[in-house]
Amino acid sequence: MNPKAIVLLSGGVDSTTTLAIALAKRYEIFSLSFDYGQRHRVELERARTLSRQMGASGHEEVKIDLRQFGGSALTDNIAVPTHRSADDIAVGIPVTYVPARNTIFLSFALGFAEVKQAADIFIGVTAVDYSGYPDCRPEYIEAFEKMANLATKAGVEGTAKYKIHTPLIQLSKAEIIRKGIELGVDYSLTHSCYDPDANGRACGACDSCLLRLKGFEEAGIKDPVPYRK
Amino acid sequence: MNPKAIVLLSGGVDSTTTLAIALAKRYEIFSLSFDYGQRHRVELERARTLSRQMGASGHEEVKIDLRQFGGSALTDNIAVPTHRSADDIAVGIPVTYVPARNTIFLSFALGFAEVKQAADIFIGVTAVDYSGYPDCRPEYIEAFEKMANLATKAGVEGTAKYKIHTPLIQLSKAEIIRKGIELGVDYSLTHSCYDPDANGRACGACDSCLLRLKGFEEAGIKDPVPYRK
Repeated sequence: MNPKAIVLLSGGVDSTTTLAIALAKRYEIFSLSFDYGQRHRVELERARTLSRQMGASGHEEVKIDLRQFGGSALTDNIAVPTHRSADDIAVGIPVTYVPARNTIFLSFALGFAEVKQAADIFIGVTAVDYSGYPDCRPEYIEAFEKMANLATKAGVEGTAKYKIHTPLIQLSKAEIIRKGIELGVDYSLTHSCYDPDANGRACGACDSCLLRLKGFEEAGIKDPVPYRK
Repeated sequence: MNPKAIVLLSGGVDSTTTLAIALAKRYEIFSLSFDYGQRHRVELERARTLSRQMGASGHEEVKIDLRQFGGSALTDNIAVPTHRSADDIAVGIPVTYVPARNTIFLSFALGFAEVKQAADIFIGVTAVDYSGYPDCRPEYIEAFEKMANLATKAGVEGTAKYKIHTPLIQLSKAEIIRKGIELGVDYSLTHSCYDPDANGRACGACDSCLLRLKGFEEAGIKDPVPYRK
């Protein structure tokens, strides 16, 4: 019987590649998405489709309302910045930062892992192409892992030693895409845009689109998703 | 201007006393409750009433569905144990344990704190009258605090040094109640029972009622809430 793992899956390039890596390591996968008041539902539908098509054993979508607290362009009526240079994107913490988002996501993943008797949690954070999110850094992940093993019945009783896997943390976007192509990821099903149109077509101008396009360009691969304009 | 703090408030004896302690320390308080699929809504109503009457500046109720994952008598159709001795209650991790509950609660509190520009979070956990919850121990709280300061924009930029306050952690239930009485807490508004009847009356037999009754008895104070039968 394969060990079980939880994979945080948003349906973007990074989390989808992370799912492919976890599957290649022969884990039995339960994927987890969050409906957190982001502006669009495209990524939730893509995550569900990707999970099923790639061979996860289960998928859960957790509804939480981060809009209640506010404080981010991803959940409030703050304009998403567009057409920024890679250098500008790399400076400081962006307006798309959602307070404590990865901490909340990993906390749910931990509860899900304990119930499923999984000890392994995969998250597709990356510290290269650094996007300014404090909760994507290795020192944060280590601190969360330590806390997780003190927080839980399984951790305390020694039936599980929780491990937060971050297989992308040292990879550039181009390296992530090359890795995913090697593993057979169909990137036409992924979604990255912060501000898609009604047909789900990407804007090509927000930070997420720009980092994605730059990654495909550097990988020498054509991005298969449709862009408007 | 008083510094702001977030108080996790369930409407029970411990969290209500914690709120009184935080108010006595002259913080401006924003209280936070969770509708997490627990079996009854009495405690949510009590928390809102207590927050308002005691003088908090705001109260938020966050809806999250922990039933989705299962794994606890508090959220599943598992029988809540009754009439156990204090010694039995103290042994092992109870069926009312909800996987990663305090981690999820504290993660939301952290997001709320960052948005409200509060650096202080109060939680009424206690390691005496030890109820077997791993996420009530000092080493867990310390690990969470360390993680919180790595997780957030405010923590990383140095605009906030997050502190998790656990003013009850070394107090027995009787000491908590005496402290609350000193601070003027009206315990008739609090609710502790895992299994109240339709009128909100406590069962007097679940672990939570038994610990509460024992605490009032040891404090030499009559518990003002109504019990059925």
